Amino acid sequence: MSSDPLVIFTPSGKRGNFPKGTPILTAARQLGVDLDSVCGGRGICSKCQITPSYGEFPKHGVTVADDALSEWNAVEQRYDDKRGLPKGRRLGCQATVQDDIVIDVPPESQVHKQVVRKRAEVRDITLNPTVKLSYVEVEEPDMHKPSGDLERLMTALKASTGHDHIEVDTHLLRPLQPILRKGKWTVTAAVHQGRADTTPRVIALWPGFFDKPLFGLAVDLGSTTIAGHLCNLETGEVVASSGLMNPQIRFGEDLMSRVSYAMMNKGGDIEMTNAVRDGLNQLVTDIATDAAIEKDQILDSVFVMNPVMHHLFLGIDPFELGQAPFALATSDALELTASEIGLEIADGTRAYLLPCIAGHVGADAAGVALSEAPNKSDDLALIVDVGTNAEILLGDKDGVMACSSPTGPAFEGAQISSGQRAAPGAIERVEIDPVTKEPRFRVIGSELWSNEDGFAEAIATTGVTGICGSGIIEVIAEMRIAGLVDASGLIGSAEQTGTSRCFLDGRTNSYRLWDGDEDQKPITVTNADIRAIQMAKAALYSGARLLMDKRGVDKVDRVVLAGAFGAHISAKHAMVLGMIPDCPLDKVTSAGNAAGTGARIALLNRDARGDIETLVRQIEKIETAVEPRFQEHFVNASALPNSADPFPILREVVSLPDVSFNTGGGDAASGGGRRRRRRG
Amino acid sequence: MSSDPLVIFTPSGKRGNFPKGTPILTAARQLGVDLDSVCGGRGICSKCQITPSYGEFPKHGVTVADDALSEWNAVEQRYDDKRGLPKGRRLGCQATVQDDIVIDVPPESQVHKQVVRKRAEVRDITLNPTVKLSYVEVEEPDMHKPSGDLERLMTALKASTGHDHIEVDTHLLRPLQPILRKGKWTVTAAVHQGRADTTPRVIALWPGFFDKPLFGLAVDLGSTTIAGHLCNLETGEVVASSGLMNPQIRFGEDLMSRVSYAMMNKGGDIEMTNAVRDGLNQLVTDIATDAAIEKDQILDSVFVMNPVMHHLFLGIDPFELGQAPFALATSDALELTASEIGLEIADGTRAYLLPCIAGHVGADAAGVALSEAPNKSDDLALIVDVGTNAEILLGDKDGVMACSSPTGPAFEGAQISSGQRAAPGAIERVEIDPVTKEPRFRVIGSELWSNEDGFAEAIATTGVTGICGSGIIEVIAEMRIAGLVDASGLIGSAEQTGTSRCFLDGRTNSYRLWDGDEDQKPITVTNADIRAIQMAKAALYSGARLLMDKRGVDKVDRVVLAGAFGAHISAKHAMVLGMIPDCPLDKVTSAGNAAGTGARIALLNRDARGDIETLVRQIEKIETAVEPRFQEHFVNASALPNSADPFPILREVVSLPDVSFNTGGGDAASGGGRRRRRRG
Repeated sequence: MSSDPLVIFTPSGKRGNFPKGTPILTAARQLGVDLDSVCGGRGICSKCQITPSYGEFPKHGVTVADDALSEWNAVEQRYDDKRGLPKGRRLGCQATVQDDIVIDVPPESQVHKQVVRKRAEVRDITLNPTVKLSYVEVEEPDMHKPSGDLERLMTALKASTGHDHIEVDTHLLRPLQPILRKGKWTVTAAVHQGRADTTPRVIALWPGFFDKPLFGLAVDLGSTTIAGHLCNLETGEVVASSGLMNPQIRFGEDLMSRVSYAMMNKGGDIEMTNAVRDGLNQLVTDIATDAAIEKDQILDSVFVMNPVMHHLFLGIDPFELGQAPFALATSDALELTASEIGLEIADGTRAYLLPCIAGHVGADAAGVALSEAPNKSDDLALIVDVGTNAEILLGDKDGVMACSSPTGPAFEGAQISSGQRAAPGAIERVEIDPVTKEPRFRVIGSELWSNEDGFAEAIATTGVTGICGSGIIEVIAEMRIAGLVDASGLIGSAEQTGTSRCFLDGRTNSYRLWDGDEDQKPITVTNADIRAIQMAKAALYSGARLLMDKRGVDKVDRVVLAGAFGAHISAKHAMVLGMIPDCPLDKVTSAGNAAGTGARIALLNRDARGDIETLVRQIEKIETAVEPRFQEHFVNASALPNSADPFPILREVVSLPDVSFNTGGGDAASGGGRRRRRRG
Repeated sequence: MSSDPLVIFTPSGKRGNFPKGTPILTAARQLGVDLDSVCGGRGICSKCQITPSYGEFPKHGVTVADDALSEWNAVEQRYDDKRGLPKGRRLGCQATVQDDIVIDVPPESQVHKQVVRKRAEVRDITLNPTVKLSYVEVEEPDMHKPSGDLERLMTALKASTGHDHIEVDTHLLRPLQPILRKGKWTVTAAVHQGRADTTPRVIALWPGFFDKPLFGLAVDLGSTTIAGHLCNLETGEVVASSGLMNPQIRFGEDLMSRVSYAMMNKGGDIEMTNAVRDGLNQLVTDIATDAAIEKDQILDSVFVMNPVMHHLFLGIDPFELGQAPFALATSDALELTASEIGLEIADGTRAYLLPCIAGHVGADAAGVALSEAPNKSDDLALIVDVGTNAEILLGDKDGVMACSSPTGPAFEGAQISSGQRAAPGAIERVEIDPVTKEPRFRVIGSELWSNEDGFAEAIATTGVTGICGSGIIEVIAEMRIAGLVDASGLIGSAEQTGTSRCFLDGRTNSYRLWDGDEDQKPITVTNADIRAIQMAKAALYSGARLLMDKRGVDKVDRVVLAGAFGAHISAKHAMVLGMIPDCPLDKVTSAGNAAGTGARIALLNRDARGDIETLVRQIEKIETAVEPRFQEHFVNASALPNSADPFPILREVVSLPDVSFNTGGGDAASGGGRRRRRRG
């Protein structure tokens, strides 16, 4: 045994002795080294490229001679002539062991490559898609041993993949015989396996060796927009992204109005199901065109969405989600064929829907949990996905809890007098001088502050059209820091604040943020605007506080803001408003579209599906609507930042003037008139 | 322990001690006694009816007191009032053990009832359908423990059925919530499990307790006719049968012409697929109407058919089956949803196709094998399914072989000058007096022989229109016995035979079977007719003989004739012609439509599916077309009965005159000009 040559693989460090003449691919497989191969060692696919190393390796205790591998052979030469093999590379299925050798497996030859994520605080994605290609040679039919072409294909696939049992999609029965004959009894099969314990299935077939990559689609099915990312399943790379407005918007801007539409109109839910499926089909066509691939190369898809979208997408009437006890028709993850959900794509394409956490906490929140992995966090993380409904996760390695809170659309600029969606011309950043109370701001589309030279020219085409969600957070927080707004949320008068920018505007005061020009009206912040933001942020904070209560803590180690809104929000200003709990500012990070990232993770790594399904089962679900302390927290959280929680860490870096503008009038900051709203 | 009362079940003899108060159903389940229950012991379904016995039971060593069971309770009273409980019966879920007791489980309360078959030589069918009903109470949704309605249903079903894992058909996601609420959180689920190792799936749901029976459809999809039997899955009873012409006939009478149609016409196979599916949908509608049931009570179906029909039914172009090596697209059994094969029936209905044995030996032959079970036979059985293609099985417990042989349509009356399909007016029985050479016959539609009084009146409406398949066998065999035909198949002249019924008819002689009357022409048997039958029967016998060679035997213990033709054939006459091997006449039996019976067995007993799949894998397949000895056997078998095999058993009961009419002319009985034909 020990006289056989030693083969050492890097970077894994796996090693073993193999008889002379053993192909490197065979040695790798026997040692469990992660070396790819689609063609099963026939020198066709070139996935098994390796880099031999020669010379002295004191670390490994070997010396590698120049002839430690067999000579470059005709198969390698043919491949090199045809497609080019990088210098120093060999084909692992062709090069055989002759003497002690050190073999490096480059990342692109590994099946389970790491897909690097940009943010330092999150884990990389291990590539392990549900669909893998396998090229096989199929025994020809023989009258003396009659068997179906399919059964001989399955025999070849079982031998090649190592699966004991493989099934086949019914739609392949018809094309099977022509494909086998066109490929002269060679065929490439796409074999899908959702979970490790599910039976693998052949979902697509091509004659001969199919040398194009496969793709998958990760879709965040939002109530406003549908965003899809097309991922190369062999590299993990996002090759195209596409988005469109959710066509359901014509049935209602927010989800509750869509639920109402279904209730009021017989067949209304079916209309909405058809609308969203039509939208998705448009997205699939667009994204395949963008990426210049054939639609039938897209063989997997993963979806995240809130519960109402989840049901409408599946063709389930969302009626029950519109009323207590908010019963989901189904909460577990679903693995479907694309045709079952009306997707016009390859017949074999699969669709995976992440599980829903609760009636208000959907598969989108599950996507956030998968992306941010609070269950793997050493420190206690609060993760907030801010939309018209906030979905909140709190947890660490010891456990994770979830709830949702009805923030309403104020954070998106709705219900705000000068509010607008984020678009060029919208004020997105604000600073107010604490002494002069004069503001300066920046609008989307320009890098200049409003008091800088050239600002007027820079905004000439867009104008200053309103305030977007992040801008309204900043202006109110700045007003609070500048002493223009008191802790109860009242704007002071010109007299109280010493600036004429504050002016009586009906029964309350407003603050003039921009004076306007010949074309456009001034932009002001009204006390009603502040009330709307108070309601929204109080809902958000109360949800988080409730989870902290349940967990028995009064602070968190870090805060993650997810969602498009979270990406633009200033941590300091959010904390001044008391949107999020007190916490060091450098511990507040933005996760971007974490739900969509979660979809992408589940697309690229099938083990992640099991992980999130397990986590969702383990998550402790809190229904805020029926928690007695929610109302108390809500009232406290209506204050800026909070009438009960002291925010000591914030106050170390920001001074909040102890002003009060309550003159005994009627509009106190009680948070009265709060209505429960549904997510959007 | 031993102080607990003893419960003895009959007829199983299972016994055990149970604490006072144990329901009989619980005791039965713990002992593995076959006692049915759909409602899980809630006193709703009444499937668990049992008959307690009282008094002395020396055989069991117990005395049963009058109060050995709990008193008749309110649930039993309610059920009795509403639907009536037979005298002496109790509900097993309500009656509890109080003292030693003997409990009889009547057949209708057993899950695995025996369905008795009429023929003595075959086994009864154990009822064990793939679809079973389960009535459950589902936990209501709770905001504090959010979970999907589906997941709570699954929890209830797992507890009720004992399955670890159950899946659900996607089409049920939409109706699930309304059904649960309509049933006030009680529901009846139809759970399908194909094989013991497949995951059970919910395929249909009804609110509350569904008290109608479920049905399954066993279909023999013949090239000429489609025959369906609707079976009650709870009793095994055939409740309706329906048949129709295969609408594919308009594309070609026999299968080879249909394969040609598909080859010559682009999309022709799809036309034929649509035609047969349309026909099946008509059959489903007809049979449900006949039985006065709802289509959605039909939740399972089983199909047998020859390979060409198999492929056309599945939507596979039969092109490859038209040429060597006769490669099947798929040979294994298939379990599909009805929608995958275009059946307009309940969304959840399943379809099972028996496996094909070889390119010429289809799922119909597998059905015959399942019905006749040669693999369980102590004696060596030859089973012949006679059609335009004969499928032949030979075997016993030590092994089974199969082949097919191209008999062509002569046995169905085609290629015969006076031949016709079996219909009123067709001659079906013939006797020829060996001395006078005068014939007498019977026609379909009359019990009278042609020489009996009243025959003319009896046939007045139908006339004598021709000779059907069984009639042609009889007349030729009788001609051979009467010395009108020699062993080579030549008809003698009037001089040679001494009867003017033999007459020169072109270059050969014919025999006048019927003189005709004023309305109808005489009916004759020509030498060409005899040639056609010689070709057909030689093909059949050669196939059988080839299997006997392979088995190393020169006789078989018994012969089973399957198929409609086999049901009408006279064993003696078939053997005189040498259609079937020499064998005691009482060992030749008819199995009727054994293929259809096989479909029914697979429908009623899911274990039988595994049995036939295993048997088909084990069957040794012989391709007659490439067997060198086939031609030799064919030549020998062209003689009547055979020029090589002596048929000693036959000759003990029938005397075959040693005549020869060969005058050195050209038309010798060499069997020349044999063409290979395809099955039909």
